[in-house]
Amino acid sequence: MSKVRVAAFSVSLDGFGAGPHQDLKNPLGVRGLELHTWIVHTEMFKKMQGQSGGKRGVDNDLVSQSFDNVGAWILGRNMFGPIRGPWKDDSWKGWWGTNPPYHTPVFVLTHYGRASLSMEGGTTFYFVTDGIESALKKAKEAAQGKEVRIGGGVSIIRQYLAAGLIDEMHLAFAPVLLGEGEHLFKGMNLHDFGFAPFKTVMGENAMHVFIRK
Amino acid sequence: MSKVRVAAFSVSLDGFGAGPHQDLKNPLGVRGLELHTWIVHTEMFKKMQGQSGGKRGVDNDLVSQSFDNVGAWILGRNMFGPIRGPWKDDSWKGWWGTNPPYHTPVFVLTHYGRASLSMEGGTTFYFVTDGIESALKKAKEAAQGKEVRIGGGVSIIRQYLAAGLIDEMHLAFAPVLLGEGEHLFKGMNLHDFGFAPFKTVMGENAMHVFIRK
Repeated sequence: MSKVRVAAFSVSLDGFGAGPHQDLKNPLGVRGLELHTWIVHTEMFKKMQGQSGGKRGVDNDLVSQSFDNVGAWILGRNMFGPIRGPWKDDSWKGWWGTNPPYHTPVFVLTHYGRASLSMEGGTTFYFVTDGIESALKKAKEAAQGKEVRIGGGVSIIRQYLAAGLIDEMHLAFAPVLLGEGEHLFKGMNLHDFGFAPFKTVMGENAMHVFIRK
Repeated sequence: MSKVRVAAFSVSLDGFGAGPHQDLKNPLGVRGLELHTWIVHTEMFKKMQGQSGGKRGVDNDLVSQSFDNVGAWILGRNMFGPIRGPWKDDSWKGWWGTNPPYHTPVFVLTHYGRASLSMEGGTTFYFVTDGIESALKKAKEAAQGKEVRIGGGVSIIRQYLAAGLIDEMHLAFAPVLLGEGEHLFKGMNLHDFGFAPFKTVMGENAMHVFIRK
């Protein structure tokens, strides 16, 4: 059975996985980008942007590994784009340009149906309107034995956590105080859910903690 | 003017600074001791316990430095002991034996007065019943230009934060999920309070983040 995991997911010191007031200008919410400083300097990230350079080291290795053995992704609609409500047309094709960094089937949770969207590099976006369990079933089928990665955002991860459907999470704690935004843990007792850390790796710019049931 | 700081204060991944259900058996609350794994292995901690051995390295250096230039401490009553309500007698002299690790005046916040208590090694406990601002005034006088260290617990730190009286905090994020206990940040926006990280040091067993206004 496919393992279901969250990987390389950035969390602030005060527990936020995104800033507040997400929009086109702030796709990660206000100051949300600060959570990802540890990623954006890596060679892997630069490569994903079609650039050269970037730093090697622990953070870079862990970003790279987060893509290993992933057979399908699940994203919340807000990770796909800033549009709310019904799709006006099919012109929005994600934040990532013509060749998104997924290279697998990607299941986007939304209340509004839309035709699937095939991009360069093997990424196809499917829009799922009948809930998180359905999306996971479809993703597991598409992953063909590889892992299903829940990409986020916070709300989607919390829904899958609450449903008991996540096996493992690699959280990257970034030395940032957001103060407000989308909280990953609030009202959730991950210890009671059965999660415990099994590996901790100190990166150059984040503390990486791997937890599982 | 004396700087007021919190130092080497352990916080779980989910933001707790102590476990729930503190009592004589669990002075740090249930599972609270897990927060301090990074400390208890250090040479400095062993030395404070009158033992030899222990690990050197980043964590050890930062525990040691947390005692530098401290002229007075402030503690909440629960850090001094498990007794609640009026003192029955003066037999409880703290968790630390005859020679506590403070070696300065220590101001203990409590609702119940008690005669001051001089211990070996230069530690004197003073019991302050007229509030956090009074305790801080006394501590600053006693510190004679050195720093005042707020030792905790969580409730005391939160009271001083809310009053805007803390200048700097060194928080040690430990790879532990407590799930419940005393939350350091809940309902507080440290970013709005003006705090921001200015130094991050990856230790062997904790991520050390220094924040200040």
